[in-house]
Amino acid sequence: MFIYQAPVRIHDADAAGVLFFGRYFTLAHDAYEAFLESKGFGAGRIFRQEKFLIPVVHAEADYKNPLWVGDLATVRLRVDEVRSRSFSISYEIYTPSNTLACRVRTVHVVVDTEKKRATTLPEELRRVLETEVAIGSGDV
Amino acid sequence: MFIYQAPVRIHDADAAGVLFFGRYFTLAHDAYEAFLESKGFGAGRIFRQEKFLIPVVHAEADYKNPLWVGDLATVRLRVDEVRSRSFSISYEIYTPSNTLACRVRTVHVVVDTEKKRATTLPEELRRVLETEVAIGSGDV
Amino acid sequence: MFIYQAPVRIHDADAAGVLFFGRYFTLAHDAYEAFLESKGFGAGRIFRQEKFLIPVVHAEADYKNPLWVGDLATVRLRVDEVRSRSFSISYEIYTPSNTLACRVRTVHVVVDTEKKRATTLPEELRRVLETEVAIGSGDV
Amino acid sequence: MFIYQAPVRIHDADAAGVLFFGRYFTLAHDAYEAFLESKGFGAGRIFRQEKFLIPVVHAEADYKNPLWVGDLATVRLRVDEVRSRSFSISYEIYTPSNTLACRVRTVHVVVDTEKKRATTLPEELRRVLETEVAIGSGDV
Repeated sequence: MFIYQAPVRIHDADAAGVLFFGRYFTLAHDAYEAFLESKGFGAGRIFRQEKFLIPVVHAEADYKNPLWVGDLATVRLRVDEVRSRSFSISYEIYTPSNTLACRVRTVHVVVDTEKKRATTLPEELRRVLETEVAIGSGDV
Repeated sequence: MFIYQAPVRIHDADAAGVLFFGRYFTLAHDAYEAFLESKGFGAGRIFRQEKFLIPVVHAEADYKNPLWVGDLATVRLRVDEVRSRSFSISYEIYTPSNTLACRVRTVHVVVDTEKKRATTLPEELRRVLETEVAIGSGDV
Repeated sequence: MFIYQAPVRIHDADAAGVLFFGRYFTLAHDAYEAFLESKGFGAGRIFRQEKFLIPVVHAEADYKNPLWVGDLATVRLRVDEVRSRSFSISYEIYTPSNTLACRVRTVHVVVDTEKKRATTLPEELRRVLETEVAIGSGDV
Repeated sequence: MFIYQAPVRIHDADAAGVLFFGRYFTLAHDAYEAFLESKGFGAGRIFRQEKFLIPVVHAEADYKNPLWVGDLATVRLRVDEVRSRSFSISYEIYTPSNTLACRVRTVHVVVDTEKKRATTLPEELRRVLETEVAIGSGDV
């Protein structure tokens, strides 16, 4: 499991003083970018050196408790499943008092940016993701 | 069905030149705010005059085709279901060539801002939503 | 003068219920994109067909009165000055009661995306901008 | 001087792959929120416990070099001036190779949220800001 923390900034909150529902996806994706970065797949490398992108093909969230402006949110990221051309990530987002604020899930597909179609996961990326699944499920 | 159109602005696109996945939720919610506004429930009224808010408790999206920077997106909003304390809205978002870009669904709960708990839909809001369900399913 | 209108969406407001100061620049830039689009220079054309970009090299804003969530903002855009390689745009943003909310100014430089350096304004863009300066100052 | 670091996330970049000009203000304000938080004035306290807000009345930026998606930006924040009812902050934002990307300046006024007008800086906030001016100018 990968842990990521970020505060709810004033511009992240909406007029009710809580994190706008759409920004939980941004927060989850920030955690995912930090996770990939920690494994050597920073956004700079992917966008400027690689010939693939990893668009999101499905995203969902269940909102349980609000995050308020100024709150430090904690995201627990887990790789759910790794398939031939896709993988899914789940995120549990917690309030400062360790209450579940939101569950998010994203499904990603690897796309060859030259051929412009789905392709198999690059081997290095597959290894990174599979190790995390194993760790996440307590098998290693 | 309620139709809403908005261009993909430069700041909406990500480094791949397409609408960032999290912003489809923002676009859908913009359509929803325009829909409520057209029925007399503008955000100004809800935030400054009413004693309820309507937070999103579930959101999901399936991404089919990208929207590119500069594209005029068309959102087709439909009220799916109206329950005692909640309702759900679905959105089909189309590219300028009328290809489906994304399907979004949001579930909303009415919360009494003084009692800080879920409450039944205000009667005026219920009428607005139920009329739209009927129209959407072709019954009226 | 070019007129652009857009509502303050729930996600645009901050925890105080007003448009976040940084988003006045986004609103101004949205007006600028709509202005360029109306003259045939849509973002789609610039990013996908042209060999130049027009980055902002200076931006400033003076905030006079808040825009509240739900308010319909009106932006009055004027081309201030057109130089060999740069131009500046000013924006007056008004509240629904026609009070000045904010004055914004942006300065743009044309950059050749292949040579990666400043270049003279493309002739078609120059004509569009110069016509607007003349109209704005009442000379035509 | 207060140092703040944050990466340019995929959703922060625009279609050119660089940080959108309006988001430098957001980045600067994030640094300012982190600075205030470090001095005991977190956004949570200001929005939920205090009877004042500190809106921005002027903001400006000069852009020197782009920040690319994936770059870790470094913000050097300095309190410029503290007056009776207002203060100004300057920010130098650097690329990962320590090149100046952008200079930002913001001017803030303290507003009494009950009387809805400008008021003198709360004493505790004044002390925090004045200490930083002194440190910044090397006088302490």
